[in-house]
Amino acid sequence: MWMEGSQMRKFALVLLLTIPSMIGHAGEGMWLPDQLPKIGAALEAAGLQTPPENFADLTGDPMGAIVSLGGCSASFVSPEGLVVTNHHCSYGTIQFNSTEEFNLLDDGFLAAGHEDELAGAPGSRVYVTESFSDVTDRVLAVIPADADGSARFAAVENAKKAIIAECEKTPGHRCKVASFFGGAAYRLYDQLEIRDVRLVYAPASSIGKYGGDIDNWMWPRHTGDFSFLRAYVGRDGLPADPSPDNVPYRPKHWLAIGVDGVEAGDFVMIAGFPGRTNRYRLASEVEDAIEWTYPQRVQRRRESLEIIERETAGRPQAALAYAAWISYMNNSMKNAEGMEAGFAYSHSVARKRALEAELATWIAADPDRQARWGDALDELEAVLAEQRMNRARNMELSSLKFNQLVSAATTAYRLAREREKPDAERKLGYQERDMRRTRARMARMARSFDARVDMTLLEHTLDGYAALPEAEHVEMLDEWFGLGGDVDPETAIKTTLHGMYTATALTDSAARMALLDADRATLEASDDPFVEFAVAMYDTNLELEAEDEALEGRLMEARPMFIEALLAYQTAHGVEIYPDANGTLRVTFGNVMGYQPRDAVVYLPFTTAEGVAEKATGEEPFNAPVPLLEAIAAADYGPYASEAIGSVPVDFLSDVDTTGGNSGSATLDDQGRLVGLLFDGNWESMISDWDFLPEVTRSIHADVRYMLWVMDRIDHAWNLLDEMGVEPAFNGASPTEGR
Amino acid sequence: MWMEGSQMRKFALVLLLTIPSMIGHAGEGMWLPDQLPKIGAALEAAGLQTPPENFADLTGDPMGAIVSLGGCSASFVSPEGLVVTNHHCSYGTIQFNSTEEFNLLDDGFLAAGHEDELAGAPGSRVYVTESFSDVTDRVLAVIPADADGSARFAAVENAKKAIIAECEKTPGHRCKVASFFGGAAYRLYDQLEIRDVRLVYAPASSIGKYGGDIDNWMWPRHTGDFSFLRAYVGRDGLPADPSPDNVPYRPKHWLAIGVDGVEAGDFVMIAGFPGRTNRYRLASEVEDAIEWTYPQRVQRRRESLEIIERETAGRPQAALAYAAWISYMNNSMKNAEGMEAGFAYSHSVARKRALEAELATWIAADPDRQARWGDALDELEAVLAEQRMNRARNMELSSLKFNQLVSAATTAYRLAREREKPDAERKLGYQERDMRRTRARMARMARSFDARVDMTLLEHTLDGYAALPEAEHVEMLDEWFGLGGDVDPETAIKTTLHGMYTATALTDSAARMALLDADRATLEASDDPFVEFAVAMYDTNLELEAEDEALEGRLMEARPMFIEALLAYQTAHGVEIYPDANGTLRVTFGNVMGYQPRDAVVYLPFTTAEGVAEKATGEEPFNAPVPLLEAIAAADYGPYASEAIGSVPVDFLSDVDTTGGNSGSATLDDQGRLVGLLFDGNWESMISDWDFLPEVTRSIHADVRYMLWVMDRIDHAWNLLDEMGVEPAFNGASPTEGR
Repeated sequence: MWMEGSQMRKFALVLLLTIPSMIGHAGEGMWLPDQLPKIGAALEAAGLQTPPENFADLTGDPMGAIVSLGGCSASFVSPEGLVVTNHHCSYGTIQFNSTEEFNLLDDGFLAAGHEDELAGAPGSRVYVTESFSDVTDRVLAVIPADADGSARFAAVENAKKAIIAECEKTPGHRCKVASFFGGAAYRLYDQLEIRDVRLVYAPASSIGKYGGDIDNWMWPRHTGDFSFLRAYVGRDGLPADPSPDNVPYRPKHWLAIGVDGVEAGDFVMIAGFPGRTNRYRLASEVEDAIEWTYPQRVQRRRESLEIIERETAGRPQAALAYAAWISYMNNSMKNAEGMEAGFAYSHSVARKRALEAELATWIAADPDRQARWGDALDELEAVLAEQRMNRARNMELSSLKFNQLVSAATTAYRLAREREKPDAERKLGYQERDMRRTRARMARMARSFDARVDMTLLEHTLDGYAALPEAEHVEMLDEWFGLGGDVDPETAIKTTLHGMYTATALTDSAARMALLDADRATLEASDDPFVEFAVAMYDTNLELEAEDEALEGRLMEARPMFIEALLAYQTAHGVEIYPDANGTLRVTFGNVMGYQPRDAVVYLPFTTAEGVAEKATGEEPFNAPVPLLEAIAAADYGPYASEAIGSVPVDFLSDVDTTGGNSGSATLDDQGRLVGLLFDGNWESMISDWDFLPEVTRSIHADVRYMLWVMDRIDHAWNLLDEMGVEPAFNGASPTEGR
Repeated sequence: MWMEGSQMRKFALVLLLTIPSMIGHAGEGMWLPDQLPKIGAALEAAGLQTPPENFADLTGDPMGAIVSLGGCSASFVSPEGLVVTNHHCSYGTIQFNSTEEFNLLDDGFLAAGHEDELAGAPGSRVYVTESFSDVTDRVLAVIPADADGSARFAAVENAKKAIIAECEKTPGHRCKVASFFGGAAYRLYDQLEIRDVRLVYAPASSIGKYGGDIDNWMWPRHTGDFSFLRAYVGRDGLPADPSPDNVPYRPKHWLAIGVDGVEAGDFVMIAGFPGRTNRYRLASEVEDAIEWTYPQRVQRRRESLEIIERETAGRPQAALAYAAWISYMNNSMKNAEGMEAGFAYSHSVARKRALEAELATWIAADPDRQARWGDALDELEAVLAEQRMNRARNMELSSLKFNQLVSAATTAYRLAREREKPDAERKLGYQERDMRRTRARMARMARSFDARVDMTLLEHTLDGYAALPEAEHVEMLDEWFGLGGDVDPETAIKTTLHGMYTATALTDSAARMALLDADRATLEASDDPFVEFAVAMYDTNLELEAEDEALEGRLMEARPMFIEALLAYQTAHGVEIYPDANGTLRVTFGNVMGYQPRDAVVYLPFTTAEGVAEKATGEEPFNAPVPLLEAIAAADYGPYASEAIGSVPVDFLSDVDTTGGNSGSATLDDQGRLVGLLFDGNWESMISDWDFLPEVTRSIHADVRYMLWVMDRIDHAWNLLDEMGVEPAFNGASPTEGR
């Protein structure tokens, strides 16, 4: 698209409004909702028009509308339990309902009425946060005075289990104890767990995943990354298993739609469930991530993707089975590449080292501080150094879990062993409360498994394990695969695996599901090679787990001590601190703004519908639908065009602070109305898991105006618009008629 | 580089000043200097501060300083004949003086004094335009009333030769008759031809060619594309062959250096020698270029480059020989690719068709116009259609000329035949006046020839020829290479070529040079296979030439008729017309400005020194010299930084209208001072040979401040700065000291 002069002028003005230093760096910070009143001045400066206290009430407006899908965020947008989230957050459900003939990924889907809505993929959930409370004292109180790492870990785990069990006495609730600042504080979150979640509407992937893995993490972006689900409960209003008898859930609050969207410089706010950040990690940990973790990850993901591509070539059913997995792997690989690129210019390690030096000076300057925190950094470094010693082995062993048959058998046998104990004494993850998730995970496998791919990936992992130095080998694993001595490891692995995959019955989905109910004796008597493998590895796995937990327990002591010192130092310098993301509900706020990615290049904050056409090649992932391109060519935008932008805005940038888990979060305007959906970070934001760079860290949002325009003009989702209180503009008009 | 807020703000303001529509589209137009007074209002609106009449005087200030190098433009910048041009315009001379041990391409070169200056590559020239005059009447008067194509072509050629011969009676002068508007008008240009041109200074290629073929035609750009030559003449002040006795030429005018440069929005003007544009071609011609010419060119260049790379692998001497050729081929290929990309969005064909339809309507609306031009378009289309019939064959045959041995022998034999005629009757290009160029071309071959590469390229060309349909074959060529019947053409070609390259003596440079002086009988008696081939092909070549000339002659009648109609139409609509570029002196003016290359992306008009460091990888072509990177890291910019830009500007964009041949042109400010050197167009400007798109067509200039900073701070070219009247800022200061 080649802008006309008048539009260029507008863009220049828009840009002028988007310069961070002119409106302050609101962006950094994933705040706890109850912190917001404390930073009211910053919120007001950024442009919030409502009292920040409103956001501290989780059951009020708008926070009562914000939900988690487990891994993604979402929000209610109607009193009938209609939920809006990203297309990529519903991808598993869309894929689950797709077949070669009836491919919802390709074609999109719109339910004409409630009765046409499609089942969510097994394990689909909507979590409505009802309350939270501080349980730090309860957790810390149970730790014995001179506990070692293992004892500390066990004590904390037991305290968490007890607190959760108490909380989950309320039917239909799911509770979680989250740790903050590395274990310095704990909170209990009580959520309603809605488990009948249905697909209502998704545009075609050629809109919802437009640009695919090529554009992923990139700006300019033109992805219509939105979809709609609906939460259903039993007639009694309580969560229930999926059933035709269920009725739509009626949330206490739902978001109003800000049909006019936002413009450059405007305030925006994100409420959602960011998964994990590492902002308070040491310089040495960042360095380790840069030099070891991410390069390893890039290489491993690339190899796995090559294997999947090769092994599914010409096998569309197998390719479909791995579509979501490929998405995940590409995403993870590109993320790691972005990390490497980002660290190359961020100077994160140097800045962390400088901060650590300042902190050390500050501690040493006061005897009390010296007594309390003088050893904190060294002690933390010592545990971390020990943890790093096994990182290569641990990475190979954790790759084993990506193998679906190994994972199925290992899970089943562990479950059988745990079930021998009273429920309260079982490990977290193996209690009765976890069984639904475990079953769902196993059920999902039916649609995302192919024995040939599975075996080839496992073979590759084991070849990597075999290449580790002798000292890092695990005896039982060597024994099982016949490694060691003069044996050629690749041949031994290939031979053993071929035998296992030939003999196993677990390639059958029903057989895998049945395993979950088998008791210890049955499993130990099984001659299925994967079950035999799981039984053989059981003691080894427990030992490795105990080693990990002992280190984790030591970290639970060392890290809070360091962070306590750091917080004291920051507080002494007047800095308000937010905790690292940990999957709990957070609010971040900032402003719509572009950035300068490199010398002489400026990225504007909004992309336009014309930009969709500009990228269209007809080839996936740039295969924009013809009706969409026709509507763009005709500029048939109705009320959804922004005058300032001169088109329908497709996606936009802001400096809000988000990470994985925030996907699908409602983007709220200064009145708390929905004006977009967060769905990604820019390339430069990759390292924001470790370090927030105000000049370049940006989040990417799907604009509500593109969402509404596509729903109205292209997909005729007039029923949903009505339900959200938005009057359709194209309802009744011929799709080929201009207006 | 991640801009600080204060710099970002500046960039935003800069951008605001760069929006085309706010300052008018000055850019389009390669004006004849004598046209400038007629468009004085437009020049004034764009910001020119001096009377436009100044530019109409070719021997005045500043036009008297503007020179041609033959293929590049340049300008005098001192009274001692110092010439500034692009690094890439001196590339042949730098390469000519480079050896494996003493590699000026890698290391750069600075002559400490006149005595250290290095010889230009054979054929190096500086052309100083002394005057021009309109000779249309003299040329057209000799065309017989009902001449056919051949007769018309011959009459025009004879008229040109007579006019040139008369003009060149003045010793040391070179004259040229240029045709305008397809043959509607002719002008005689009289130039002083200085033929002792020496290399004075060139930065290392890691500055002068920074970004290489990757960044070529691209923005953002960080190339220091400048170098200095010096023109020498005999002690009598007249042009002379290179000799130690020669003295620096003393030009009548030289440019003042605008040390403060320009800022966004400022007026800039380019005076130089653009080679060729096709702005008045028909829609059908543009379509042919899009669908046939450029795709063909891309494919052929790519194949040639692959051959050169393969055949020079591990042979550094051969690789060095083809360095300039590779540059040329890459450039040409990327240009053709840019054409394809540009035509994809420019709608040039549709706009031309619309214009042709409007023109037809306008002609038909008036009986006089109808009588005069009613058939003009159809007649032109008819000749063009005929010309297109042989395009595939002609492309293969013209590729033959890229073969150096074929070309040497063919030129020598043609020369021998032409020399049998009186000089005035010989073909243009084979007269005594052409002999120096011919010898220089042949001499240059000594440094840019490798038999193995030459043979492999020729084999590839002939394989392509052999694959043409039978009807397009040339009898004598088939006969020579034994093509036709059941013969496998590739084998026949390989065998014949192997015999030719084994038997020929022409791989020796002296043998090739000697050929030029051989007479017809000697050549016809030669048993050198390339000479035998040239003799065998002679009649065929003449026949093909006559066919081409007959068509050209018909075009000389048809095209002016169409263009006359078009000009009348445009004039009637108040549009001032500039002629297509034809290698003659032109002036174009516009303003410093960026543009929007695609949705949500804005290119700022200036790159910065920090951007050089941002791109630096240590690997060619991003191997910025360490001292340069250190100086950038220290921001040791002295007076060369722009306050508005916050750094030393490296390159900048403007909307002036330029093309190949303009390279090296002085970029002048509103006072006529040198503020940069034009060296490239942006990617979107590729199609500007056919179509100027005001919103995106941009020229790229090296900024005078980067040039001066590199000369002063990095290369210590203080003698040259003194000579140009610029006071060095770093002279005497330790290079590592800040200022």
